[in-house]
Amino acid sequence: METAFLQSVFFQNGILKILDQTKIPNVTEFLEITTIEDAWDAIKQLKVRGAPAIGIAAAYGLLLGIKNAPENSFDDFYIEFKKQADYLATSRPTAVNLFWALKRMDERAKKEKNQPVAKIKEALEEEAHLIRQEDEEVCRSIGTHALSLLKDGMGILTHCNAGGIATAKYGTALAPLYLAKEKGWNIKVFADETRPLLQGARLTTWELMQAGIDVTLITDSMAAMVMKKGWIQAVIVGCDRVAANGDVANKIGTYGVALLAKAHNIPFYVAAPLSTIDLDTKSGDDIPIEERDASEITEGFGKRTAPEGVKVFNPAFDVTPHELVTAIITEKGIIKGNYQVELPKLFQG
Amino acid sequence: METAFLQSVFFQNGILKILDQTKIPNVTEFLEITTIEDAWDAIKQLKVRGAPAIGIAAAYGLLLGIKNAPENSFDDFYIEFKKQADYLATSRPTAVNLFWALKRMDERAKKEKNQPVAKIKEALEEEAHLIRQEDEEVCRSIGTHALSLLKDGMGILTHCNAGGIATAKYGTALAPLYLAKEKGWNIKVFADETRPLLQGARLTTWELMQAGIDVTLITDSMAAMVMKKGWIQAVIVGCDRVAANGDVANKIGTYGVALLAKAHNIPFYVAAPLSTIDLDTKSGDDIPIEERDASEITEGFGKRTAPEGVKVFNPAFDVTPHELVTAIITEKGIIKGNYQVELPKLFQG
Repeated sequence: METAFLQSVFFQNGILKILDQTKIPNVTEFLEITTIEDAWDAIKQLKVRGAPAIGIAAAYGLLLGIKNAPENSFDDFYIEFKKQADYLATSRPTAVNLFWALKRMDERAKKEKNQPVAKIKEALEEEAHLIRQEDEEVCRSIGTHALSLLKDGMGILTHCNAGGIATAKYGTALAPLYLAKEKGWNIKVFADETRPLLQGARLTTWELMQAGIDVTLITDSMAAMVMKKGWIQAVIVGCDRVAANGDVANKIGTYGVALLAKAHNIPFYVAAPLSTIDLDTKSGDDIPIEERDASEITEGFGKRTAPEGVKVFNPAFDVTPHELVTAIITEKGIIKGNYQVELPKLFQG
Repeated sequence: METAFLQSVFFQNGILKILDQTKIPNVTEFLEITTIEDAWDAIKQLKVRGAPAIGIAAAYGLLLGIKNAPENSFDDFYIEFKKQADYLATSRPTAVNLFWALKRMDERAKKEKNQPVAKIKEALEEEAHLIRQEDEEVCRSIGTHALSLLKDGMGILTHCNAGGIATAKYGTALAPLYLAKEKGWNIKVFADETRPLLQGARLTTWELMQAGIDVTLITDSMAAMVMKKGWIQAVIVGCDRVAANGDVANKIGTYGVALLAKAHNIPFYVAAPLSTIDLDTKSGDDIPIEERDASEITEGFGKRTAPEGVKVFNPAFDVTPHELVTAIITEKGIIKGNYQVELPKLFQG
């Protein structure tokens, strides 16, 4: 049984369709985007979020920008292509996947340079679809590997949203939950709300409910009690970056969840596409941690809930040391043990 | 140097003054209450919160209700006294301190029954002041004992609000911080915001800032990272109930903080007036845990932030097992080791 699944970014009849994630969970609305300017806006305003989803939106957005590019010569076409790609790159200058996707489109354009421009445009549309499709395959593969660690009837705790709407489909940490649902398993998910931005409350619960998966929302502070009650058999989270020694940077709060899991003898799994594993980063100490605006905490609900002028510490991420990570689940398989030795093998051959 | 201190409940020139805690931190406003009906409203609507503060407000509120009670005979007076006390008891039927304070006023009335009623009214005003004053002494004594566990320059993490505004003065967990300030110590406090009701963000930061104490607000999910950074040398929390074996029921999230403290070798202290120690409760398993409305999590402060119909688990308290409690700090001293043996000694002689 295929699970009902809302894809958050896709391209149909020349129209880029993007689920407006800023309106979730109150309104489910797809933007129908026909110009690169509107694609730029959607990325800028976080209507599309999640590194893979942003990359996919950028590839499709670029197609809209080159629709009317000159077809008389490659050189004239390429001048316009570069201009549009450079423009799109300004939408969210810190999003690595945005640049990665635009670079991949650029390489394809150059590879096809001896073709007529009309053919190049077709090749670029194919490339954008490939980017989307490969991400879906990566996620499904992570899900398949992760599923081998789970059993029917388990309770799973997750933090933040490493879900289908942040990727082409399935997500990373949530991928095994969709595959479990397809198998007819009864998995009970607990979603940390994930302060300050509430991605768990707003997005994870929403997308799991869409697929008919049993999900219960808790505040971050309730995870320990839920574990003590024996309701959780595994924790699965996504990640922003994995260092060469297996230290994991992820949404603030993840490190605490990992400590709580250890205290209750619950395995702690990290779903990590190869694109997030950075062997050039030696350890978690080398990962810069972004500090964000105090207002996310003091005016989180649109209403001021802390005194004016209060000091706030608001790191966006934390680092979970490798010794707390039971396994790292990639599209190429499950990595355990000495990460320093095992992670490089993923990139060999 | 006496620290600037806002008392949240006091009685002056026949007027009950109550800091309206529902308006903190945005507006600092004292209600001036002259009728028992308005006292009833203030308790009912949580304008006064914190078990000791509720008890004090009830004692003073009762004075307003008996102001015009007949003075011709004790019996006529006492009929009116009981009527008013019973009415006030309906304001918040689950607040143990409310009943405790009304019972104490009742005992005083009966003790003075051979006095002229005008004298009885004076005695009852004295009793209400005594309730307030004794609570202040309990808090100050807890603060003095707790201070012996701290040092100048330490970083302290607290959860929820066991502060001055919940008591006559000083609070319980926060009491040593005010005394440290009086000594000129430089203590750096980290306040968990304490979802879902944000008592840490709204109240703890506010009252510490009023006293000029260095306080930094974090989300509950950041406590682990702050500990790992080496910023915390002790955790101090209040409690709702201590069982005979030393298990502690307190605001949801406390158990997780205790586990995180243990993982970082940070002492975890519980400030507990004798009134919260219940030797008739054998262990934490015997403490009923109230589950509250889902809307506290899904519609935090007026705005919906989770899908309609989402399942929610919202326990108001959790239980921290005694083995995670480094010491229990009472007005009679610091209790460590075998709580089962040590706690009963507090009530002997």
